[in-house]
Amino acid sequence: MTNTSHLSTVYREKFALVADLYHLTMAYGFWKNGLQDRPSVFQLYYRRNPFGNPYAIATGLGLAIDYLQQFRFTVEDIHYLGSLNGADGKPLFDIGFLNYLQRLEFKCDVYAIPEGTAVFPNQPLIRVEGPLLQAQIIESALLNLINFSTLIATKAARVVQAAPGDQILEFGLRRAQGLDGALTASRAAYIGGCHATSNLLAGKYYRIPVRGTHAHSWVMSYGDELKSYRGFASAMPNNCIFLVDTYDTISGIKNAIEVGKELRTTGHDLIGIRLDSGDLGALSKIARQMLDEAGFNNTAILASDCLDENSIKKLKNEGAPINIWGVGTELITGGTQAALGGVYKLAAIQDNDGAWEYRIKKSEDLYKMSNPGIHQVRRYYNAAGIPQADVLFELGKQEPEQELIEMHNGKASPLPSPAPFEDLLVPIFKTGALVYTVPELHQVRERSIQQQLLFKDAEQDFIHGLDRYLYDLKQRFAQKN
Amino acid sequence: MTNTSHLSTVYREKFALVADLYHLTMAYGFWKNGLQDRPSVFQLYYRRNPFGNPYAIATGLGLAIDYLQQFRFTVEDIHYLGSLNGADGKPLFDIGFLNYLQRLEFKCDVYAIPEGTAVFPNQPLIRVEGPLLQAQIIESALLNLINFSTLIATKAARVVQAAPGDQILEFGLRRAQGLDGALTASRAAYIGGCHATSNLLAGKYYRIPVRGTHAHSWVMSYGDELKSYRGFASAMPNNCIFLVDTYDTISGIKNAIEVGKELRTTGHDLIGIRLDSGDLGALSKIARQMLDEAGFNNTAILASDCLDENSIKKLKNEGAPINIWGVGTELITGGTQAALGGVYKLAAIQDNDGAWEYRIKKSEDLYKMSNPGIHQVRRYYNAAGIPQADVLFELGKQEPEQELIEMHNGKASPLPSPAPFEDLLVPIFKTGALVYTVPELHQVRERSIQQQLLFKDAEQDFIHGLDRYLYDLKQRFAQKN
Repeated sequence: MTNTSHLSTVYREKFALVADLYHLTMAYGFWKNGLQDRPSVFQLYYRRNPFGNPYAIATGLGLAIDYLQQFRFTVEDIHYLGSLNGADGKPLFDIGFLNYLQRLEFKCDVYAIPEGTAVFPNQPLIRVEGPLLQAQIIESALLNLINFSTLIATKAARVVQAAPGDQILEFGLRRAQGLDGALTASRAAYIGGCHATSNLLAGKYYRIPVRGTHAHSWVMSYGDELKSYRGFASAMPNNCIFLVDTYDTISGIKNAIEVGKELRTTGHDLIGIRLDSGDLGALSKIARQMLDEAGFNNTAILASDCLDENSIKKLKNEGAPINIWGVGTELITGGTQAALGGVYKLAAIQDNDGAWEYRIKKSEDLYKMSNPGIHQVRRYYNAAGIPQADVLFELGKQEPEQELIEMHNGKASPLPSPAPFEDLLVPIFKTGALVYTVPELHQVRERSIQQQLLFKDAEQDFIHGLDRYLYDLKQRFAQKN
Repeated sequence: MTNTSHLSTVYREKFALVADLYHLTMAYGFWKNGLQDRPSVFQLYYRRNPFGNPYAIATGLGLAIDYLQQFRFTVEDIHYLGSLNGADGKPLFDIGFLNYLQRLEFKCDVYAIPEGTAVFPNQPLIRVEGPLLQAQIIESALLNLINFSTLIATKAARVVQAAPGDQILEFGLRRAQGLDGALTASRAAYIGGCHATSNLLAGKYYRIPVRGTHAHSWVMSYGDELKSYRGFASAMPNNCIFLVDTYDTISGIKNAIEVGKELRTTGHDLIGIRLDSGDLGALSKIARQMLDEAGFNNTAILASDCLDENSIKKLKNEGAPINIWGVGTELITGGTQAALGGVYKLAAIQDNDGAWEYRIKKSEDLYKMSNPGIHQVRRYYNAAGIPQADVLFELGKQEPEQELIEMHNGKASPLPSPAPFEDLLVPIFKTGALVYTVPELHQVRERSIQQQLLFKDAEQDFIHGLDRYLYDLKQRFAQKN
């Protein structure tokens, strides 16, 4: 078990069949036409930052690595594929192809931007180079794993930034999209900067700290709130955060304080109270005052109730003295933006003579049109180590050329020079073998938090786009028929 | 393997740890206070229909049954729980409790509304009766499984109803929330009425029909669209639906027709073309005319591109001659409503003398306040078999009383009488043993489609609410302190 992936520990089997039917029919077409091993390059990128955030936090690579390491068609998979028929009722795939699939091993080169990195639209988060069939067939699994994780890590970063210095607890399990939706989101939310999760399975697999309070049902099972707090305190004197709104919030706070005093006589303390409904701003102020007056100045106030970064910001602006935020539904699903529209596009393919041909998907909108060629992203820093610019450039050029053109406004700027830089895409697999040291989850989280700080400092001045060569190349492709 | 569940086939292990930390701390509290076996009743329900739909399609029970059958703490789970500490750095749980958990078997009675049933706010989709600790600890897993599946099946029903008679293909894998998010959603979308999925794993596990076309990368890999269609046709003449918008849609249709003519010379046909961008209404009309003029009157037009029920309805209203709809992101995530806010509330608990005490969670809003007591839902039909009313009533009363009060408007109506009726909640587990014949997935889907037809006929006349007794009981509870 690694700390950064769970597919192989959670799931019973290999996942080559995490694919759309058309990947298999295309694979069959490539194989029938002798194109299966044609060297090709695919790039995975997204077109718009989620939630209107200035960047996204690239996340999911750990899962993608695990998936690729496990890539293999099982005997059951092959039987299933053999059972599929075409429009004429005849088998879709012939036996030679099924035998080929059963022997298929993943042999591509993979480059990727490390998890936890702040990234921008049109930058390849993953670049896959290898035999056409293999590079194509992994599309949906990679998109599934990267899209969702990147979405949730970015959402988490927004939530964490809304309450600097406070604790953010991810409470989303019950509203997540499937059991694995919850597990994947807990991992991504932690990378984005959350401090803990309520999800025990995520705690077990990823060693993410787990936190929680108790449910209304605890109080309801006693019928008497004070007795219920006493029952909790006698069982777990070292874990008392009381939910105070089951019947009446003010009475709940009074009861919590009463049991808090009793806790102190046994050498423990009231860790916190939790507000889960009503006017959280007003109630937290009342609660703070009541707690302080009773000498519980260190008792935390935890709030929950359909929170997201906007409602948290609003409460912070009101001066709500809340220290800990439990964020569920909006964080675990992305809320009103429930998907990152990442795509995986063929960028280049070798011709019969072994020369690379660039390919694009055309669109009436130049911004939406894919960028031709095989790309690297170079990030420039100023002397203080603050990011200045990201340039997408054609890998064959070795170096970015002259100017940076911002795609969203067409503005050209000189490339920073001389300036320290790093190339963001690093080797992950070489001919199907892992050549990357997968970081521990806490390291990924630290990188993400560090990146958020860097890009807070970079602010308005940071620019990203294509170098002059790639921009001109794209224009030429757009005009070609 | 059953056709209606995948947890035990897909996942490697038991899932008792699919829980929030607070379920385990409450369980510990119950155990320490000798309350673990106190008979209690929990009910799972939601408060608002998703997407403004007149009802929701209850879905996920098959998964919940699978989860409950597998319920068991593993040795690893116990070790993990033993490693958790409280605020003072001392273990949260003592060894006696961990031993208790390791031996714990699920022994509750479970009642539920069968999958595929149209349901309404405040109706218990699941009622759990049994030892307090056990009935509490399964909360988040049940909510996770039922919330998401019900959301997506309801979304699917809306999409299917937007295009009566057309084929709806679920294409969401790449935008789903985790691998299992996709699998769970494919299952729910099929129950909601979708005709097929692109997701091969869902095809394999659930035997959901799989459908697909090809990607832009197929065309891009050839560079020449006509050649690429020919390549596809030579490999799979029985599976030709050509994606026509890689470069220019009109040229794409022409090329598809040309290869369609060639297919006919080999005894095959052009099954369809696919539009994936641009003005789908205008382009589909042009495509239909071009296809018809070329004699391809039976060639289908498939459309995709961020579709949902609203855009499909709009296209239908414009008279767009589209026969097959590929729906991805919006269907697989729920779109702007990415979660159903289902809750799981303690309804009743026995006192020391074995008498049932009802419990509620109070709220300033009577509508949001939980309903006291142990409930059944009785559905009344008219002589033609059309649903007339759903009445939530207290199970101890055996029969609903006098009147039905609609919660959203307070209106009272006499109960339909004499009228045929059925009680929606049926026994699923008895003392932890499955007593329910789990229907095959296709049966669940048929039920859902049948229910959608029934409620289309019921239309405005259908009412749902509480019986007079329960309504008065709730009022009394609301006034009590």
